Amino acid sequence: MENLLYWAGMLAVAVNSLTGVLDAGRKHMDLIGVMMVGAATALGGGTVRDILLQRQVFWVEDQAYLIVALAITLVVFFSVRGLRLPPRLFLIPDALGLALFTIIGTQIALEWQAPWLVASLLGTITGIVGGVLRDVLCNDVPLVFVRGELYASAAWAGALLLVGLQALSVSPVIAAWAGMATVLGIRLAAMAYRITLPIYSARK
Amino acid sequence: MENLLYWAGMLAVAVNSLTGVLDAGRKHMDLIGVMMVGAATALGGGTVRDILLQRQVFWVEDQAYLIVALAITLVVFFSVRGLRLPPRLFLIPDALGLALFTIIGTQIALEWQAPWLVASLLGTITGIVGGVLRDVLCNDVPLVFVRGELYASAAWAGALLLVGLQALSVSPVIAAWAGMATVLGIRLAAMAYRITLPIYSARK
Amino acid sequence: MENLLYWAGMLAVAVNSLTGVLDAGRKHMDLIGVMMVGAATALGGGTVRDILLQRQVFWVEDQAYLIVALAITLVVFFSVRGLRLPPRLFLIPDALGLALFTIIGTQIALEWQAPWLVASLLGTITGIVGGVLRDVLCNDVPLVFVRGELYASAAWAGALLLVGLQALSVSPVIAAWAGMATVLGIRLAAMAYRITLPIYSARK
Repeated sequence: MENLLYWAGMLAVAVNSLTGVLDAGRKHMDLIGVMMVGAATALGGGTVRDILLQRQVFWVEDQAYLIVALAITLVVFFSVRGLRLPPRLFLIPDALGLALFTIIGTQIALEWQAPWLVASLLGTITGIVGGVLRDVLCNDVPLVFVRGELYASAAWAGALLLVGLQALSVSPVIAAWAGMATVLGIRLAAMAYRITLPIYSARK
Repeated sequence: MENLLYWAGMLAVAVNSLTGVLDAGRKHMDLIGVMMVGAATALGGGTVRDILLQRQVFWVEDQAYLIVALAITLVVFFSVRGLRLPPRLFLIPDALGLALFTIIGTQIALEWQAPWLVASLLGTITGIVGGVLRDVLCNDVPLVFVRGELYASAAWAGALLLVGLQALSVSPVIAAWAGMATVLGIRLAAMAYRITLPIYSARK
Repeated sequence: MENLLYWAGMLAVAVNSLTGVLDAGRKHMDLIGVMMVGAATALGGGTVRDILLQRQVFWVEDQAYLIVALAITLVVFFSVRGLRLPPRLFLIPDALGLALFTIIGTQIALEWQAPWLVASLLGTITGIVGGVLRDVLCNDVPLVFVRGELYASAAWAGALLLVGLQALSVSPVIAAWAGMATVLGIRLAAMAYRITLPIYSARK
């Protein structure tokens, strides 16, 4: 399990830094700007989780994460910047990063003895913070605030499912897969069909 | 005293999440957006205080705070969204939350052995951060930056009074009431009479 | 060495709070706003470094830093606000603060056993965060995001030089001076000659 978490974390870092570079590239940032956005997107969510849990920050302890994030950024920067890519291409890796980080974050919080509701929220935070940083640094409206595209709610649903299945003594690996599938499924369905949540509205 | 701090903290969380919902609701956010704003407003200030003090984050340790914040948000969301409320109604609970959080934050910092000036600043931070998060997430100008409405200065004055009274061996409970009354009094007076601080101005 | 670090830290706090006041003053903030910007500019970078390293936050432990930041702010506020200063005057102390904080931050991270690449990044963060907070609070575009003015890259280059020289067993004091000269030299040269990094650009 520990080993799986480690490699899933590396994959999530790689996928998220990819979305960061693509977005920063669209805004014609320079090399250091792209590296900052890539690293912030890849490392932001887990950093906030670790600080809230008073845990050693994962990339400060093990610089392999930082090296992966910077390496992906450099490779994509120099290979992709001549290509014209469809602007919303990065939504698929973004959904994958959201799912991976949410499930990893929830799992780590549970192992760190966080209460169940707190663990689900910390997982959601791990999932969404990187993308929020990316969008703020690139001056986009954060996806998490775009109405009619379930984002934080997809993450939270998956995190709660993971917590619930583990409480029912389902094996952690199966619970993790089920949680990830939930996040990805809800997020992709919401993008495809524009599923919405109820909106607070004053009487007209 | 510990018990009083605990319940005052719950009340502050409830009051602040109420202001968050009302503000997010005015911006027609969806359910998850309103919940995020409510939770950030309720928990943000104490979170920053605990991180700066290297203390276990209060709502990670005890999920009752998170449950109160989310419950208030849900109840207000579904009960109030049909009503038309005067837009600045939330300024009164906002002032109450500012006063409660400032005094609680200062008291906790003092118990955590922070030096006196640091304790007063950490109290002020505890008081203002939730509202700043709310206003930023709702795309308002943070109240703390509105000129001519004493906000951070009201909080700081109350925190300094609390620190000073305790240094003079006044009972902590009396010092806390005096500090709260100071924050609330200055804040409400500033709203009513638009009291201002000196402004930095270059020669014309 | 410890003593030198301490006084260099005080100097960096003083210089950075000076740039904060000058910038906040140009925006005609009131007294408390100017104090908040001054303190955030002076203390922000080191705060983020200490939190990421799980180290006691420097100004919470020793309130002399906070007192220096607030004293500089008050003195400058009341002495300078009648003068008309050239708007970009504060770029020189800003470059000095960037260099000082970057080198101090890298040195502290190394002493705290951070891996070398992480230490260089934490030094860069220590250098740039204060200025980013100042510019965000004053509603300027952060200098770090202005294209064609090497800022984060100047800091990172100096931090990497410091790490490299120490790995080669150069004395820490000489390595620190060389690192500082590098940051200052690159930053000032970039301002003077508008040296740029490669920019990510899609094919036209």
